[in-house]
Amino acid sequence: MEREVGNGGNGDGQVEIRVLTERAHEVVLPPRRSTLAKMKARAKETFFPDDPFRHFEGMPLGTRWALAARYLLPVLAWAPAYSLSDLKSDLVSGLTIASLAIPQGISYAKLANLPPIIGLYSSFVPPLVYAVLGSSRDLAVGPVSIASLIMGSMLRQAANPNTDALLYLQLAFTSTLFAGLFQASLGVLRLGFIIDFLSKATLVGFMAGAAVIVSLQQLKSLLGIVHFTKQMGLVPVMGSVFHRTDEWSWQTIVMGIFFLILLLVARHVSMKKPKLFWVSAGAPLACVVVSTLLVFLFKAQDHGISIIGKLKCGLNRPSWDKLIFDSSYLGTVIKTGLVTGLISLTEGVAVGRTFAALKGYKVDGNKEMMAIGIMNIVGSCTSCYVTSGAFSRSAVNHNAGCKTAVSNVVMALTVMVTLLFLMPLFVYTPNVALGAIIVTAVVGLVDVPAAYRIWKMDKMDFLVCLCAFLGVVFVSVEGGLAIAVGLSMFRILLQITRPKTVILGNISGTNIYRSVHHYRDAVKVPGFLIVAVEAPINFANATYLNERFERLIEEEKLEEKKVGLSFLVLDLSVVSAVDTSGISFLMDLKRSMEKRGIEVIFVNPVGEVMEKLQRANDIDNFLGGGSLFLTIEEAIFVLSCPLVKGST
Amino acid sequence: MEREVGNGGNGDGQVEIRVLTERAHEVVLPPRRSTLAKMKARAKETFFPDDPFRHFEGMPLGTRWALAARYLLPVLAWAPAYSLSDLKSDLVSGLTIASLAIPQGISYAKLANLPPIIGLYSSFVPPLVYAVLGSSRDLAVGPVSIASLIMGSMLRQAANPNTDALLYLQLAFTSTLFAGLFQASLGVLRLGFIIDFLSKATLVGFMAGAAVIVSLQQLKSLLGIVHFTKQMGLVPVMGSVFHRTDEWSWQTIVMGIFFLILLLVARHVSMKKPKLFWVSAGAPLACVVVSTLLVFLFKAQDHGISIIGKLKCGLNRPSWDKLIFDSSYLGTVIKTGLVTGLISLTEGVAVGRTFAALKGYKVDGNKEMMAIGIMNIVGSCTSCYVTSGAFSRSAVNHNAGCKTAVSNVVMALTVMVTLLFLMPLFVYTPNVALGAIIVTAVVGLVDVPAAYRIWKMDKMDFLVCLCAFLGVVFVSVEGGLAIAVGLSMFRILLQITRPKTVILGNISGTNIYRSVHHYRDAVKVPGFLIVAVEAPINFANATYLNERFERLIEEEKLEEKKVGLSFLVLDLSVVSAVDTSGISFLMDLKRSMEKRGIEVIFVNPVGEVMEKLQRANDIDNFLGGGSLFLTIEEAIFVLSCPLVKGST
Repeated sequence: MEREVGNGGNGDGQVEIRVLTERAHEVVLPPRRSTLAKMKARAKETFFPDDPFRHFEGMPLGTRWALAARYLLPVLAWAPAYSLSDLKSDLVSGLTIASLAIPQGISYAKLANLPPIIGLYSSFVPPLVYAVLGSSRDLAVGPVSIASLIMGSMLRQAANPNTDALLYLQLAFTSTLFAGLFQASLGVLRLGFIIDFLSKATLVGFMAGAAVIVSLQQLKSLLGIVHFTKQMGLVPVMGSVFHRTDEWSWQTIVMGIFFLILLLVARHVSMKKPKLFWVSAGAPLACVVVSTLLVFLFKAQDHGISIIGKLKCGLNRPSWDKLIFDSSYLGTVIKTGLVTGLISLTEGVAVGRTFAALKGYKVDGNKEMMAIGIMNIVGSCTSCYVTSGAFSRSAVNHNAGCKTAVSNVVMALTVMVTLLFLMPLFVYTPNVALGAIIVTAVVGLVDVPAAYRIWKMDKMDFLVCLCAFLGVVFVSVEGGLAIAVGLSMFRILLQITRPKTVILGNISGTNIYRSVHHYRDAVKVPGFLIVAVEAPINFANATYLNERFERLIEEEKLEEKKVGLSFLVLDLSVVSAVDTSGISFLMDLKRSMEKRGIEVIFVNPVGEVMEKLQRANDIDNFLGGGSLFLTIEEAIFVLSCPLVKGST
Repeated sequence: MEREVGNGGNGDGQVEIRVLTERAHEVVLPPRRSTLAKMKARAKETFFPDDPFRHFEGMPLGTRWALAARYLLPVLAWAPAYSLSDLKSDLVSGLTIASLAIPQGISYAKLANLPPIIGLYSSFVPPLVYAVLGSSRDLAVGPVSIASLIMGSMLRQAANPNTDALLYLQLAFTSTLFAGLFQASLGVLRLGFIIDFLSKATLVGFMAGAAVIVSLQQLKSLLGIVHFTKQMGLVPVMGSVFHRTDEWSWQTIVMGIFFLILLLVARHVSMKKPKLFWVSAGAPLACVVVSTLLVFLFKAQDHGISIIGKLKCGLNRPSWDKLIFDSSYLGTVIKTGLVTGLISLTEGVAVGRTFAALKGYKVDGNKEMMAIGIMNIVGSCTSCYVTSGAFSRSAVNHNAGCKTAVSNVVMALTVMVTLLFLMPLFVYTPNVALGAIIVTAVVGLVDVPAAYRIWKMDKMDFLVCLCAFLGVVFVSVEGGLAIAVGLSMFRILLQITRPKTVILGNISGTNIYRSVHHYRDAVKVPGFLIVAVEAPINFANATYLNERFERLIEEEKLEEKKVGLSFLVLDLSVVSAVDTSGISFLMDLKRSMEKRGIEVIFVNPVGEVMEKLQRANDIDNFLGGGSLFLTIEEAIFVLSCPLVKGST
C-alpha cells in the first residue's frame, strides 16, 4: 500500500495500526493467462459445464472408445446388467403404459388434425429409437398433448386438414423433421441452455393455458357439434359453441359426462393412492372398450354419435417421400418445427430430470436432446409426428415400477400388435370417448398450487405466469409463449440495465460493512460514501450508473454538511465483469469526482475487472497510487487517519 | 446464532470465542415494506434514476409551476440571463455553422435521395424548435449523414425516388413523423435507456461501416458515373464502379480529387490547431463557391460534369397533407422511422452529453429525446426530413465559441436568407463538389484509435465492433446494426446464463476470503468448500448452477480425501436477486447435499434474497437452525469448532 499510514496516534491506535499493517494485502492481478486460454476456459464453462469427458482423461485408447460408445448409446450402459426381474417389472409397466398410449395416441393425433392411425404409428417407432439412445429410465415416449395442439393450430393456417389432407400430412412430417433437426442440433452444439429460458413460471402459465385451449377444442366432440370454429382462442370457441346450440346432441352429451366422471374419479383414486396407479392407467382403455361396445350394440352412430370410422391395418409406412421443401411452405414448417420441437423438448427433458431426481440417477440434458431429436428425425421418415416424453404416461410408467427403457420396447410391441391385428375394433369407437380422455389427460396440466407458490414467492414471476396463461387463452399458443419468454428476458435485461447501488455502513464494533437500508445497526462512516454496485458494469448500465452516482453524491452532500464528503469507496466485489463502457464509466467517475474534491477508491476488484482496470491504467494512468484496497475495512482505516489528524 | 459454540477449548480459544460472540450478528430480514412500496421504489429507480422532480418537493404551488415550465422549456432557464456578449459569440458561431450547414444540407439530402432543397428546409425549422426545447448549448441541429443514408437505403425498397418522386417524398415525411413520435415517446415514457443498448463498441463499428458505405455511394458523383447500382453493399457498388468504366469522366475525377484534397487538408489543419476551426468550417462553402464559379465560367456542365440544376426560392411549405398512412406503406415508414429515429437520437444525445461534459453542465437524456422528437414531428409537417445534432457541426459550433442555442437560431436565419434569395446561385454547383464534402464529413466517423483501445481492453467487445462494421459493409445498414445489438445482448444474457462460480479461500492471518484462482495466498479451509455465485440466480441459470455444483463437489471430493467435505458455504453477497427457480435451486441444493452428508450454509443473503429465503422457509422449513451467517469468517469459526472437537 503506497499511502502513508498516520503514525501519530495514541497507544491503542498504534496497536490497531500494527494489526492492520500485518493484515494489509495488496490487490494483485490474477495469474496471467493468454487470451486463448481464457477463451478456452470460458467456452468450457459455457458449453461443457458438466464436463462429460472428464472420465476420459488418462485412459487407454480402447477404454476411451468403449466410454465414447457408452456415452453415445446409453443402452450399452444398462443392457449388460439387465436381469430377469428387471424384465418382469418392465413387462408390467410396458403393458400398463401401452393401455394408456393407444387411446391417447388416437386422441392426440386428432388434436393435431391428423388421422388417428398416425398417433399409433408415433407410439411404435419412436419408443424403440429412444430405448437405444435415451438416458432416462422412466420416460414413456409417444405423442404429447401440447405439441399436438400447437402443430394442429400452426399448420391449419397453411393447409386445410379436411380438404388438403395429403398436403397437411406432408407438412406435419416435414415439421417433425425440422423439430428433430432442431432438437438434435441443440444437443450436438451443446446449446441446451436455450430451454432454460422457459422458466418454471412461464411453463406453469403456458401449460394451464394450453390445457384450457385443448379442453375447449374437445367441446366439439363432447357436445357433438358438427360445424365447429377453426380458431383456438377462448372467445371464438365459446362463440361457436353457443352459436351452434341446435347441433348439440343429447346422446353425445350424456355419454361424454358419463365417461368424464368415470375418468376423473379413476384419476382421483390413483392420485390419492399411488399404489392404485393401474386404475387411472387402465381407465382410458376401459373407456374406449366400453364406449365402442355401447355404440356397436345400440347402433348409436345412427343416433347422432360420431365415430372414428374405418382404420387400415398394417405397420408404419416409410414417409421420406412425403417430406416437402417447397419454398411456399418452408417458413411454416420450420416455424412449426421450432416451436413444437422446443416445447416437446422442454417437456421431455423436464420429465426425465424429475424422475431421475426421484430415483437418484442423472439425466444429461444435451444427450437427451440428441436422443429426442434423432427419434423425431427417424419418426418423420416413418409416418410419425412430433413425439416426446409425456408427463402423465411417464408418471404411470414410474408408478408401475419400470426399471429401464425396455418398458418402452414392450409398449411399442403392444402397439405393433394393435396395428397389425386390432385396428378393425376401433371402427365404432365414439369421438366423445376420445374427447373425455383428452380432457382428463390435460386437467393435470393446470397446477394451481404451483401458481399460488409463485405468487407467494415473487410477484413479478407470477405476472410472467399470468401473461403466459392469458396470452395462450386469448391470443394464440405461440403468442402466449412469446409474450412470456419476452417478459422473462426483459426482466433479466432490466436487472442489468438498472443494477442496484447499495450504500454500505459499518456494523459498529465489527469490521463488517452491510447495506444501511437492510441492517439498522449499520452506520455510515463520516466523510465516506461506501457504495456497492450489484451487477456487471457494461454498456447497458454505464449511463444509468452515471446519473445514479450524481444523485447519490448530491443526496449525501445534503446529509453530510458537517464533515464533508472526502471519499467515495466503490466496492467492486460484486461486479463480476466490465466491458469498455464500464471501464470508461469508472474512469469518468474518478475524474469527475476529483474535480469536486472527492477521491474515488476501488475495493476488491475481482479477476477480470482488475485486469481491465490495470490495462486502462497502463494507457491512461488514471488510478494513481493508493486507489485500490482489498477490503473496505482497510480502505477506511488507512484513509481516515489523515482525516482524523486534520480534524484535531 | 442458534448453533452452540464449542465451549471446551483452551484459554486462547475462549478469548476468541468471546470476541466472536461479541461480533456475531444475525442475518436479519430487511425492514418490512409493502409490495406496493417496493414496486414504487423499483419503478422510481427504473424510470427516474435522476429524480428530476426532487427540486419540486416542499415548494409553493407557484414555484412548482415555474419549475415545471423551466423543466419543459429550457429556454426559460437561460433566456433571462442572456447578455450582449453571449449574442456576439453566438452570432459568430451561428454564421460559422451556417456556412457548413448549407452545403451539408444539400449533400445529405442527396444521400437520402431527396431533392437538395429539403436539406435546406431541414436546416431552417428544426433548429428553431430545438432552440426553445433543447437543453444542450452546443448541439448544432440539422440533417445528419447516417440517418440520411439509412432513410435513403430503406425507402428506396418501397418507392423509386426518380420515377415516383412524390410518393418517395411522402414516405420520407411520414417516416420523419414516426421517427419523431418514437423519439418523443421514449422521452415521455422515460425509456431513454433503450439507446444505451447501442454500446460504444457497436457504435464505433457501425459508424465506420456507415462511413465506408456513404463514401462508396459518392463514387457515383466523384467518378461521374450515370448508371449506378441502387444497392448499398461493398460488393455490388464495386461491381457497378468497375463495370461502368466507360462512364468515368476525367473532368469530374480531376475536380473531385482537387476538392477532396482541399477539404482533407483543411480538416487536418483544424484538427491540429483547434483555433483554426474556421478553416475546416468554411472549406465546404468555399468548395461550393469555387466549384460553382468554375462550372459557370467554363460551362463545364457540357463537358460531363453533372450539376444540381434549378432550385425554387421560398421557405418551407407545409407538408402535413403529404403524410400518408396507406396500409401498404405503413410497415416501411414505421420501420424506417424507428431505425432512423433511434440512430439519430443516439447520435444527438451522445453529442449533447459529450460537449456538456466538456463545459461542465448536464444534459437530461429523456428531455433531449422529447426535444429531438418534437423537432422531428414539427419537421415532418414543414417539409423537413429526419434531423438531429451532428457531431462534426456541433464540434465546429463548440470551437467557434457558441454560448447558447441562439447559435442555432442564427444558423436558421442564415439558411432562411439563402432559401429566400440565394437559391439561383446553386444551379451550377457540381455534384462532385457535394460528393467530396460528404466524403470528408464522414471520414471523421472512422475512429481507428477507439477500435484499437477496444481491442486492447476487451476482445469480445472488439468482436461486436467488427461484426457491426462488417455487417454494415457487406449485409446492410440495418442488418449490421441488428447483428451488433443482438450480439451485445447475447453476451449479457450469456453472463447471466453462465454465471461465474468462484471458490474462495482464506488469506492466511486475516479474516479475508478471496478467490483461490486469483489470490495465490488464499488457501482453502479443510472440510469446507466456500463458493460465491456472481450473478442473480434465476430460471436462466438454475439448471446450469445445478450441474456446476455437482462437478464442484465431485472435484472437491477427489482433492479432499483426508478430511472429507462437511460444509458447502455459499456466499450469497453477490447474488443481488433470485426468482422462484433460484429459490428452488437453493432448496434442492440444500436437500441433495444433505443426502451426501454435506451441510449447506448460506452467507450474507442481501435484502430481497433474504426475504425470499424466509418466505420459502415459512412454507417448507428447509433452512433449519444455523444455516445463515452474516460473514464467511463467522460461519467457518462457528462450524469448525465441533469439527476440531471431533478430531481430538
